[in-house]
Amino acid sequence: MDLLDDTVPGIGTYEDFNTIDWVREKSKDRDRHREITNKSKQSTVALLFSISDAFSGWLLMLFIGLMSGALAGGIDIAAHWMTDLKEGVCLNGFWFNHEHCCWASNETTFQERDKCPQWKSWAELMVGVSEGPGLYVLNYFMYMCWALLFAFLTVILVRAFAPYACGSGIPEIKTILSGFIIRGYLGKWTLIIKTITLVLAVSSGLSLGKEGPLVHVACCCANILCHFFTKYRRNEAKRREVLSAASAVGVSVAFGAPIGGVLFSLEEVSYYFPLKTLWRSFFAALVAAFTLRSINPFGNSRLVLFYVEFHTPWHLLELIPFVLLGIFGGLWGNTCLGHYPVLEVVVVTLLTAFLAFPIEYTRMSSSELISELFNDCGLLDSSKLCGYTSNSGSASGSVNATAANGLGARLAGPDLYTAMWQLALALLLKMIFTVVTFGMKVPSGLFIPSMAVGAIAGRLLGVCMEQLAIRHHEGDIFRGWCSPGADCITPGLYAMVGAAACLGGVTRMTVSLVVIMFELTGGLEYIVPLMAAAMTSKWVADALGRESIYEAHIRLNGYPFLEAKEEFRHKTLATDVMRPRRGDPLLSVLTESGMTVEEVERLITDTTYSGFPVVISQQSPRLVGFVLRRDLVISLENARRNQEGVVSMSPILFTECDPPMSPSAPPAVKLHSILDLSPFTVTVHTPMEIVVDIFRKLGLRQCLVIQNGRLLGIITKKDILKHMAQMANRDPDSILFN
Amino acid sequence: MDLLDDTVPGIGTYEDFNTIDWVREKSKDRDRHREITNKSKQSTVALLFSISDAFSGWLLMLFIGLMSGALAGGIDIAAHWMTDLKEGVCLNGFWFNHEHCCWASNETTFQERDKCPQWKSWAELMVGVSEGPGLYVLNYFMYMCWALLFAFLTVILVRAFAPYACGSGIPEIKTILSGFIIRGYLGKWTLIIKTITLVLAVSSGLSLGKEGPLVHVACCCANILCHFFTKYRRNEAKRREVLSAASAVGVSVAFGAPIGGVLFSLEEVSYYFPLKTLWRSFFAALVAAFTLRSINPFGNSRLVLFYVEFHTPWHLLELIPFVLLGIFGGLWGNTCLGHYPVLEVVVVTLLTAFLAFPIEYTRMSSSELISELFNDCGLLDSSKLCGYTSNSGSASGSVNATAANGLGARLAGPDLYTAMWQLALALLLKMIFTVVTFGMKVPSGLFIPSMAVGAIAGRLLGVCMEQLAIRHHEGDIFRGWCSPGADCITPGLYAMVGAAACLGGVTRMTVSLVVIMFELTGGLEYIVPLMAAAMTSKWVADALGRESIYEAHIRLNGYPFLEAKEEFRHKTLATDVMRPRRGDPLLSVLTESGMTVEEVERLITDTTYSGFPVVISQQSPRLVGFVLRRDLVISLENARRNQEGVVSMSPILFTECDPPMSPSAPPAVKLHSILDLSPFTVTVHTPMEIVVDIFRKLGLRQCLVIQNGRLLGIITKKDILKHMAQMANRDPDSILFN
Repeated sequence: MDLLDDTVPGIGTYEDFNTIDWVREKSKDRDRHREITNKSKQSTVALLFSISDAFSGWLLMLFIGLMSGALAGGIDIAAHWMTDLKEGVCLNGFWFNHEHCCWASNETTFQERDKCPQWKSWAELMVGVSEGPGLYVLNYFMYMCWALLFAFLTVILVRAFAPYACGSGIPEIKTILSGFIIRGYLGKWTLIIKTITLVLAVSSGLSLGKEGPLVHVACCCANILCHFFTKYRRNEAKRREVLSAASAVGVSVAFGAPIGGVLFSLEEVSYYFPLKTLWRSFFAALVAAFTLRSINPFGNSRLVLFYVEFHTPWHLLELIPFVLLGIFGGLWGNTCLGHYPVLEVVVVTLLTAFLAFPIEYTRMSSSELISELFNDCGLLDSSKLCGYTSNSGSASGSVNATAANGLGARLAGPDLYTAMWQLALALLLKMIFTVVTFGMKVPSGLFIPSMAVGAIAGRLLGVCMEQLAIRHHEGDIFRGWCSPGADCITPGLYAMVGAAACLGGVTRMTVSLVVIMFELTGGLEYIVPLMAAAMTSKWVADALGRESIYEAHIRLNGYPFLEAKEEFRHKTLATDVMRPRRGDPLLSVLTESGMTVEEVERLITDTTYSGFPVVISQQSPRLVGFVLRRDLVISLENARRNQEGVVSMSPILFTECDPPMSPSAPPAVKLHSILDLSPFTVTVHTPMEIVVDIFRKLGLRQCLVIQNGRLLGIITKKDILKHMAQMANRDPDSILFN
Repeated sequence: MDLLDDTVPGIGTYEDFNTIDWVREKSKDRDRHREITNKSKQSTVALLFSISDAFSGWLLMLFIGLMSGALAGGIDIAAHWMTDLKEGVCLNGFWFNHEHCCWASNETTFQERDKCPQWKSWAELMVGVSEGPGLYVLNYFMYMCWALLFAFLTVILVRAFAPYACGSGIPEIKTILSGFIIRGYLGKWTLIIKTITLVLAVSSGLSLGKEGPLVHVACCCANILCHFFTKYRRNEAKRREVLSAASAVGVSVAFGAPIGGVLFSLEEVSYYFPLKTLWRSFFAALVAAFTLRSINPFGNSRLVLFYVEFHTPWHLLELIPFVLLGIFGGLWGNTCLGHYPVLEVVVVTLLTAFLAFPIEYTRMSSSELISELFNDCGLLDSSKLCGYTSNSGSASGSVNATAANGLGARLAGPDLYTAMWQLALALLLKMIFTVVTFGMKVPSGLFIPSMAVGAIAGRLLGVCMEQLAIRHHEGDIFRGWCSPGADCITPGLYAMVGAAACLGGVTRMTVSLVVIMFELTGGLEYIVPLMAAAMTSKWVADALGRESIYEAHIRLNGYPFLEAKEEFRHKTLATDVMRPRRGDPLLSVLTESGMTVEEVERLITDTTYSGFPVVISQQSPRLVGFVLRRDLVISLENARRNQEGVVSMSPILFTECDPPMSPSAPPAVKLHSILDLSPFTVTVHTPMEIVVDIFRKLGLRQCLVIQNGRLLGIITKKDILKHMAQMANRDPDSILFN
């Protein structure tokens, strides 16, 4: 009876909230591969199967890219439409958003096109006139009603159908990728509900973004698609390779940055990332990006709303304000984020909508705000942010672009002053909204709100710098910065650097952050400002508290996640960590022969350990192997049910060959096949830094501790995590300078 | 007497051509770090030292970036000048190259500017007239003389001063990064000689590139700069992190692609690449790129000669020719490269120069050729490759750009036909030159020659496709491709795709290749063609032979390199690989007490093993620890020299506490401190796939094999490599579909 056959279902699977054994999973995959390869030499069908098996990974990637790209496009379009729905409706068809509605309009300037006759605000529609004192109040009220409705629906749907759909999902995905099992976290219900509620939550105007949750959506797609491929359905390690690629896909569609996405997955999310996955992730990320682009949700043939192209060079001295923005970002990453876990969603939505409506910059969606802040002012730009003296004429209707040549052209006009005050207020509100919103039980990402906060701060600083430079362009510092007809300083670049800094402070991304931003700007010359800001932001944030928002979330939820980035630097030995400790009862072991079914069953019910070492005998505790609790339970149940004559007194044998037994004895239960004959061992003298390294790199669940050939104890992943937490509490400074 | 003190020099270092122990090196670094952190709490000076130590990595990266960028700039300028020197000299100053010389010229068109009066060909200078029948022959002769001189100097310098300077150095760097020691390979002599001879070799017109060797140059810089930082000078593992970053720097300056460089280092070269290194590599790569740009060696404020910007979209059907180029690239990667290891350099140079001079495309330097092939034809372009009917007028002097509107404008003119024939000939010659040149004992890279081969093939195919499309623009396939006034097809893009395919075929790069090419074009839309070609090329090349040129080189040289990319898929166990085999003499072990100095010394002279397990006693071979031969030799010599009373009969003790001894006995030599108490062990049943994984991921040198607590054997890295080679020979098919 070969228990490794499919005949005993459940052997080799894991329970919910358990850690997988990477080594075993990878072995299983290699066995499977070997078998297919051997068979492929026997017949053409098997050869074809073997080839299709080899290419199934690529096919899977293609599907993930297509599905995620399509979903992301759908989410973009729906969110755009519903955000506009809060303000009004299109008479040509309710399914048009504001921009689409007015495309057919004959008006020429942007401002007038915004007010095309087909688009009616709710007040206009209800009252019937287009001017009047009550209209503003009515629109305000409708805006709040819609926001409330969306938020309410979001909460109801999440609570009722998929509690796992809340949050960004990135911390959980990180944990899952490190080898943890959370059943249903990447299931079809989570996918459906998360997609719908994400649109609702974003449209409700809450200070949250869809970028983080898109990673979760892509991972759900990947997990569901995995079910169609045996190679990935059955193997937890292989499935995690696919999920790593899917998180790259998520970022790729969120920011239109395939390379940045792959690096994000590598740097931030993944645990085991072989080079093969790198290449496949890249492929999937590209497919997704092109799918999204062919859907063209923003009508600008770009993947994101806030793509920019700058051309003005920056000056070396500007690094000072950039570093300042980095410090701001680092501080932002360490503020009270996450300290208000659950506030009632409806109350927050009401407050957000109430406070956000009056100010233009908080009323518009965060992506639009970022897009406007990143934008460098052209001559005909009608935005208030471009309310320079030369443009202020055009803002009030009459274009005098010809006067735009002198330096005075970039002096701040009254519109810009208004915009600055509004921005300052918006900064304050956004910060409060974001802090309060984060942790609510709705699908929410921190990427965009953080970027918005940073972009506002950056733009404010940028405009200040610009005005300084223009007013003192004869001074020592700014001499030569401004030449007539060209911009001295690009405030949009400051907004971008600020956005990068805040995002970096929250997530502690470095390379991937810079690459994502590089893909947004497309210019190599702005990498240095971005890098300066990202670096400062990370250093400041790390100095204040070493955890990123994801790690904090993981720790709060108590997931067994072994951080791969930080080195364990304490001088403890395996003997200090292993169990049993001094004075504890002895280690629970099985012997390779001589135990009965009853004894083993009692051991199983008396203990909660997820596995037991098998030794030669209790007197001579020399290690033979290791057996997992779940496999043992399933095998015993199976033997009791299916094997004839098995009673409580039947002996259990882990040996390969049978010892002599009297013919009257009950038949033995042979469990050699579920025994792991090559458990990992360390000696009592092994420094914990090496043990931690082994656990991380090989993805172990447990490790046995040996001295001179005798089994002395066991170290599990949880023991290590507990020990690391203890050491970090005891000596918090020691990891500061690393 | 603590032997881990600095008092015994040599303990903990490695001999030439040995493998380092990653675990030990990393432990050493952690110890050092712990010590500094502990001290930092005691005084302000120590705190400052601790901070400076923490930032020394960044400082080192900055220096590496600056130094490599400056060297790359110098090499570019010098190679450009010396390449032109083969044809003539500038009268304004011999140190000007052709382009610089003619910058001041008043001529307006490009063609005429090329023939400015300040620049004299050697024949003109010697004969004194600028027209005449003998001039061509004289120039031909001078060209060959210079080429010979440069090649001769290269060979002499390399042979006399730095034999390690030959080749691209990438295979050796890969080996070094995997933990091998090759003394002097990254030393100052190698750096100096490689820099000089690289310029000479490139200028000699041999079919080789400077891009690969730039990686070696950057690594030499890094290694030399490491000597100024204790943290990196003393630790082989830390130094390798720096070298990984340096190889990113090398590619960054070679292709002007910092992100591509980092990915190249990650994908192709590095062995141990923690995330911290990723971020630092990126920083160093950027610093180097900006240093190079501020030197501006090409006068176009670009980092490379062949930067391009395409704008024409491509059609889905064009993927077919792109895939064809991929197949060509894969075939090229598997041709006879490396089969002619050493041919006399002078003969090859003579032949190359003789055959290359008459054809324009072989005479110019490879980078210039690539630059011209990538170029999309503008209306006024005077290159023969742009000899379309509309342009052919301008080529012969009279500009009729107005006639360029119809489709006929892109029909091939006579110039283009000539260019095509010449290109086809150049393709053949380049291929032969490259194959013959590769393996010569001069600094040489394969990147640029491979790219040139691919670019020629691509351009040829591109022009054919273009002419097809124009002639059949009413046909079913090409309908709608060509609109009047716009290009149907970009032959430059084909050249680029071909270059990527050939480079990919030779090196088997994937992600880094596409990213490097993306950084050269700056357009996301061309990623798909590049990816299609890179993927096809890799698949074709892998199907024909699984090794990249670097791996082939490593195997030919017999370096102990454990490839991290391929999985070991054979079903063997540790017991099949461990030594001693059945029938061999017993494993040479030391006992923890009871051996004398003489016995140990005899064991050392009788065997060549680089380490010995220490067991409790010969009768009870239970493992206590492992001791390295080098440490043992040094300690014994030291004891003989410095410890009083040590004679041949002195006992050797590996135990921590002393056993009782008679007072008349000679004093014991205590070697507990050099004993590694936590050697890695596996059981006899451990599958080799897991053993290989452990060796790769933890960077082991050796591993002991245990059964039920008894030491049975040892597996070293070389045993594993030998076993892998055996298995691959026995069953070559099994790794095909992976």
